[in-house]
Amino acid sequence: MGMVGGGRGAFIGAVHRMAAALDGEIALVCGAFSADPEKSRLSGEDLCVPPQRVYDSFETMIHAEKRLPLGDRMDFVSIVTPNHLHYAPARMALENGFHVVCDKPLCFNMDEALHLQKLVEETGLIFALTHNYTGYPMVKQARAMVKNGDIGQIRKIVVEYPQGWLTNKVEDTGYKQAEWRTDPKRSGIAGAMGDIGTHAENLAEYITGLKISELCADISTFVPGRLLDDDGNVLLRFDNGAKGILHASQISAGEENDLNIRIYGTKAGLQWFQMQPNSLIVKWLDKPMEILRTGGGTLYPEAAAHTRIPGGHPEGYLEAFANIYRNAAICIRARLDGVEAPAVYQDFPTVSDGVRGMNFIEKVIESGKSEAKWVSL
Amino acid sequence: MGMVGGGRGAFIGAVHRMAAALDGEIALVCGAFSADPEKSRLSGEDLCVPPQRVYDSFETMIHAEKRLPLGDRMDFVSIVTPNHLHYAPARMALENGFHVVCDKPLCFNMDEALHLQKLVEETGLIFALTHNYTGYPMVKQARAMVKNGDIGQIRKIVVEYPQGWLTNKVEDTGYKQAEWRTDPKRSGIAGAMGDIGTHAENLAEYITGLKISELCADISTFVPGRLLDDDGNVLLRFDNGAKGILHASQISAGEENDLNIRIYGTKAGLQWFQMQPNSLIVKWLDKPMEILRTGGGTLYPEAAAHTRIPGGHPEGYLEAFANIYRNAAICIRARLDGVEAPAVYQDFPTVSDGVRGMNFIEKVIESGKSEAKWVSL
Amino acid sequence: MGMVGGGRGAFIGAVHRMAAALDGEIALVCGAFSADPEKSRLSGEDLCVPPQRVYDSFETMIHAEKRLPLGDRMDFVSIVTPNHLHYAPARMALENGFHVVCDKPLCFNMDEALHLQKLVEETGLIFALTHNYTGYPMVKQARAMVKNGDIGQIRKIVVEYPQGWLTNKVEDTGYKQAEWRTDPKRSGIAGAMGDIGTHAENLAEYITGLKISELCADISTFVPGRLLDDDGNVLLRFDNGAKGILHASQISAGEENDLNIRIYGTKAGLQWFQMQPNSLIVKWLDKPMEILRTGGGTLYPEAAAHTRIPGGHPEGYLEAFANIYRNAAICIRARLDGVEAPAVYQDFPTVSDGVRGMNFIEKVIESGKSEAKWVSL
Amino acid sequence: MGMVGGGRGAFIGAVHRMAAALDGEIALVCGAFSADPEKSRLSGEDLCVPPQRVYDSFETMIHAEKRLPLGDRMDFVSIVTPNHLHYAPARMALENGFHVVCDKPLCFNMDEALHLQKLVEETGLIFALTHNYTGYPMVKQARAMVKNGDIGQIRKIVVEYPQGWLTNKVEDTGYKQAEWRTDPKRSGIAGAMGDIGTHAENLAEYITGLKISELCADISTFVPGRLLDDDGNVLLRFDNGAKGILHASQISAGEENDLNIRIYGTKAGLQWFQMQPNSLIVKWLDKPMEILRTGGGTLYPEAAAHTRIPGGHPEGYLEAFANIYRNAAICIRARLDGVEAPAVYQDFPTVSDGVRGMNFIEKVIESGKSEAKWVSL
Repeated sequence: MGMVGGGRGAFIGAVHRMAAALDGEIALVCGAFSADPEKSRLSGEDLCVPPQRVYDSFETMIHAEKRLPLGDRMDFVSIVTPNHLHYAPARMALENGFHVVCDKPLCFNMDEALHLQKLVEETGLIFALTHNYTGYPMVKQARAMVKNGDIGQIRKIVVEYPQGWLTNKVEDTGYKQAEWRTDPKRSGIAGAMGDIGTHAENLAEYITGLKISELCADISTFVPGRLLDDDGNVLLRFDNGAKGILHASQISAGEENDLNIRIYGTKAGLQWFQMQPNSLIVKWLDKPMEILRTGGGTLYPEAAAHTRIPGGHPEGYLEAFANIYRNAAICIRARLDGVEAPAVYQDFPTVSDGVRGMNFIEKVIESGKSEAKWVSL
Repeated sequence: MGMVGGGRGAFIGAVHRMAAALDGEIALVCGAFSADPEKSRLSGEDLCVPPQRVYDSFETMIHAEKRLPLGDRMDFVSIVTPNHLHYAPARMALENGFHVVCDKPLCFNMDEALHLQKLVEETGLIFALTHNYTGYPMVKQARAMVKNGDIGQIRKIVVEYPQGWLTNKVEDTGYKQAEWRTDPKRSGIAGAMGDIGTHAENLAEYITGLKISELCADISTFVPGRLLDDDGNVLLRFDNGAKGILHASQISAGEENDLNIRIYGTKAGLQWFQMQPNSLIVKWLDKPMEILRTGGGTLYPEAAAHTRIPGGHPEGYLEAFANIYRNAAICIRARLDGVEAPAVYQDFPTVSDGVRGMNFIEKVIESGKSEAKWVSL
Repeated sequence: MGMVGGGRGAFIGAVHRMAAALDGEIALVCGAFSADPEKSRLSGEDLCVPPQRVYDSFETMIHAEKRLPLGDRMDFVSIVTPNHLHYAPARMALENGFHVVCDKPLCFNMDEALHLQKLVEETGLIFALTHNYTGYPMVKQARAMVKNGDIGQIRKIVVEYPQGWLTNKVEDTGYKQAEWRTDPKRSGIAGAMGDIGTHAENLAEYITGLKISELCADISTFVPGRLLDDDGNVLLRFDNGAKGILHASQISAGEENDLNIRIYGTKAGLQWFQMQPNSLIVKWLDKPMEILRTGGGTLYPEAAAHTRIPGGHPEGYLEAFANIYRNAAICIRARLDGVEAPAVYQDFPTVSDGVRGMNFIEKVIESGKSEAKWVSL
Repeated sequence: MGMVGGGRGAFIGAVHRMAAALDGEIALVCGAFSADPEKSRLSGEDLCVPPQRVYDSFETMIHAEKRLPLGDRMDFVSIVTPNHLHYAPARMALENGFHVVCDKPLCFNMDEALHLQKLVEETGLIFALTHNYTGYPMVKQARAMVKNGDIGQIRKIVVEYPQGWLTNKVEDTGYKQAEWRTDPKRSGIAGAMGDIGTHAENLAEYITGLKISELCADISTFVPGRLLDDDGNVLLRFDNGAKGILHASQISAGEENDLNIRIYGTKAGLQWFQMQPNSLIVKWLDKPMEILRTGGGTLYPEAAAHTRIPGGHPEGYLEAFANIYRNAAICIRARLDGVEAPAVYQDFPTVSDGVRGMNFIEKVIESGKSEAKWVSL
């Protein structure tokens, strides 16, 4: 793996590295860790990357690595820069035959998204998008239960993503994570709705297999002087007739990272809370509520295949994130070996999920500005 | 207390009687328990009401009790019939000088509501509406915290009321509680939005002291053949600029009675769940989350005054309901004694809350049918 | 019902009255509310008891009531005084043909206990002891599950009762509830072990149907100058070979009233927490954990018969307490009517549970002082 | 790192590898993964260890690695074999100048333990024992709170470790993890008390800084034919006069891995549950209960230094385990660099904790067989 971004002081770069390292199957062999060559060099040193493979830019990295023999060169590029810097390295990687793992949201706008999708289709390369929350075993279990009809026909979906860390104008205090996320030049047209709203959208569609067909949004910027939205409340309609609610917020004071979802079918309701990720609550219509647990003996293979340790030994955010990397790596290795990866591992968000997310961002912001009740996706 | 409705087999009548009995300060002295005189008679017998004070109709009751000397006659009427039978007895009670405790929603439509409000204003009589969920001590605590500025300026409110008991068409199975609630002739224009949506609306406005100024609703009837709504998702805007979400549902399979609310201010978030009513979660922006508990030593007097037993001895639905009755009774007794009741007990939902609820019902149903994004209240 | 004790300022007397009043089937008709006649009079006034039936002493009350015609006189005596004042009124009530409801623990020492048991046997009168925690519906459910073999053969029982209200020497601050509970003259030989340890013992034996056969106790008084124990840790052995732990404490800082129990059989574990009383957690060995809920559709009749309102409408401490009164009242009424009460209501703690509790107190204190490992019950 | 044990099919070996890999600072460079050379070879292949450094035995490995130049050779040995196979490789590693990370309990009996302790003292080498549960950030926070006097003087400690996976005689079904743990030849004199009881003992002593001075144990083997204990209930006395309870069980049907601890001081109670590891509940005597959370802004540096990601992104078992490895690695590297590691990282269980654990095992088993009430440690 070669990394683009993730130099000293970055948050998500370190997460990607831990996720990639966990299973001992992916090595960080090179990187262009920063636009500042000195910072890139120092970051590479921290990370024990051989100095000759620490590059000044992603362009240099891709060119140089491509010249290495197969087997020596990096197998894929991992892109962990802010949103506005996803497209260029992703495009160049694809054009030069490298598989890609990319942080979300996919890119800066819909044009970029569609172009990347086209490139992936044309090259047949693997493109994994780290909508990491779908990597949790109990999310896999929920998806399998829906797919197998366990909860009946879905009628209602409530997906929430409250955070509180932007309650005050912390982007003015030198807080790097807040700075770029509230800057339209780096984040794009959306703030909270892009950063975390897309996770909520992706989670709902991933578990249910449904698509949002229409939405009606009330988008707000509560903190004076902030340039992008910090809260959004959205009514949803799905392609099977189900109704729903999505809300995401970064001004919900005191909330940490409370992504959660409830799905109601004709036979049961499912509930999953990211902050208690190893439990899946099943509220049956006609029998007692059950709590399914990561590592439990009665789960679907999709859940079991994404669990590393026995029940009661909590798995967390990094393990879920690592599932995206592990599955992408298995598929990349299978591709290198000329074989088909087992179906249970062909399960990670792709460029199509990314396009879907960019579409959601465009439409939810459009709806927020519109007097029309419904906007179609 | 004289009761209208609540004969054998009724649910809410029994709840009212237990709530009224709990503190040993209210006696059931007479009643017109059913439109069927024989059933009324048998119900009176069950309840140890003297046979001569078990009446065939509320009209007979009000006439007869009025002829009894003060002190002997009932002090107030408790109305526990379905929605379409609130107005007539309430009106007649008020016109004949009796105070009223009435189940919610206030009545059948806005005209009735406004007329009752006018009568209450003209007569100066006490009119308590049993939006019982505001009777919980920790709801009082939340209201006092907001009033005292503890959580700062309110920005976002999420209020939910999912139930699952109407997931199937149980109104066709002889289930009396389901029958009248899904019958427009007895319930009015709304199903779930009237039955439980109004509780959610009342809870949000009670705690925050804010008023909903605009709403945008997606109202559904999921069960084929059902005549009224069984689910609604609503975007809210409040008169101080806060935004919010209200959803209520009776097809959320597996949910019992999960009324809950989250309120986010600039300093903290508050969370209260009716099914864990003795905890109020306070998520501070800058210090650790606290769990305030019924009976705890650091609560506001408003909470303490509505608590009967020490912390850790759970108080429930009936105790909260009894707080409405107890407060109304204290105020009625004070009126009879010609004194002012202590301010802390002058705290129960009134006819004005009822008018507000009827307004909500009208507007949320109107919005559900409208292509316009926002409807004003 | 005629009450002994429970005058102004008393805690448990008010609880008994609310519990008795809840179902509208028991009237407080007379009382000797205090050893101080004036206080008794004023308390009677507060409670709307006719002045001529407010007595100066329990002796006067029992004599006077006995002279009233059947039907007019009180049907039973409710004793809510501190421990040292249970025996005399209970004895006199029984000797004069009155049924008794008595607060726990049964009395002051084993001699008194055995004498009361003998009197109950001889007179055939009903004697209910308010070990109120066994009145909760989910405790009934747990008992029924054990009885029906649902969890297999019981191997291990953990019962806990931590409180923190005696962490400091509050008995010196004029806190009445603390004063008598820490006074050997009024409480007997045990402090925490008598006040709450007996609840834990009773709960464990009630649910499991087992008897403690041996115990090994470490009994402590942590607060300097306190005269009775405020903490106890106890190893248990049961008559079927099961092992267990019981601990009770009033110096567990910050704990409210956290009585809870876990029972492990060969097929499943059961868990119940008094502070979340409407849930019973069932951890199956071979299938997902279930949460059974008060009011749920799949419960045993024993649970359903002790539930007043639908699932999701929390029932609490007073409702559980009221179940003891309601069942005792049903049995007393059946006795008066010369019929057999339905079996499901012949379910409340009796004088035998009281004797068992006094035995536990004696033995646990004895073990605390002993160097021998095991003491037999 | 060179690994002893952990070949194909092993559980804890894989855990150690993931824990070591997480931070990208430890590489698995060699191993003797199995007593079966072929299995060792295949395991090495799975793990991408160069074939020439996959050894047939730990003896070969230590000899061969010692001959490699400093910098090339492994820096430490990681021992992940069953208990009876800890001593020999640990001893040989120490005698040959290698640092050691060893799974718990330390070894097979007290003699071995004392000898290893002596060797560590003599060589000055680093010896880390993976009592991994003390690696959790909120355990560090609890320890720091106790140390700083936040909860006052400790009076009572309740530590529990229920599991249910040995409820049936699964050691007869080919279940490898169960086989060796119930075999006295491989586990030593204790079953559950060694495997998990020592974790409970270590956790209690680590957080409180107290030592168990006396204990009284009831040790059981519930499953017929099992050769070692599967349940134990223990009264504890600590060196400061505090009292406590420890129980550990592998026949608590339905329990996963519910290690938890409650500590009561004169000012507050602390509660931590391994299955919800990112919350530390603080029950203050005189103010509302607080929930401290991993990643929160008000924690002690000891907690912050062991946290990798922001609050609300759950960290789990592997992250806690990795903290042991990370701290040991930091200390080993500092040693190699001839510097002092930062104090906050000099925090991992050592050979002394291991000796303490072996002492606990001896005494708890002795007490279980004794008729004397108290056994001193």
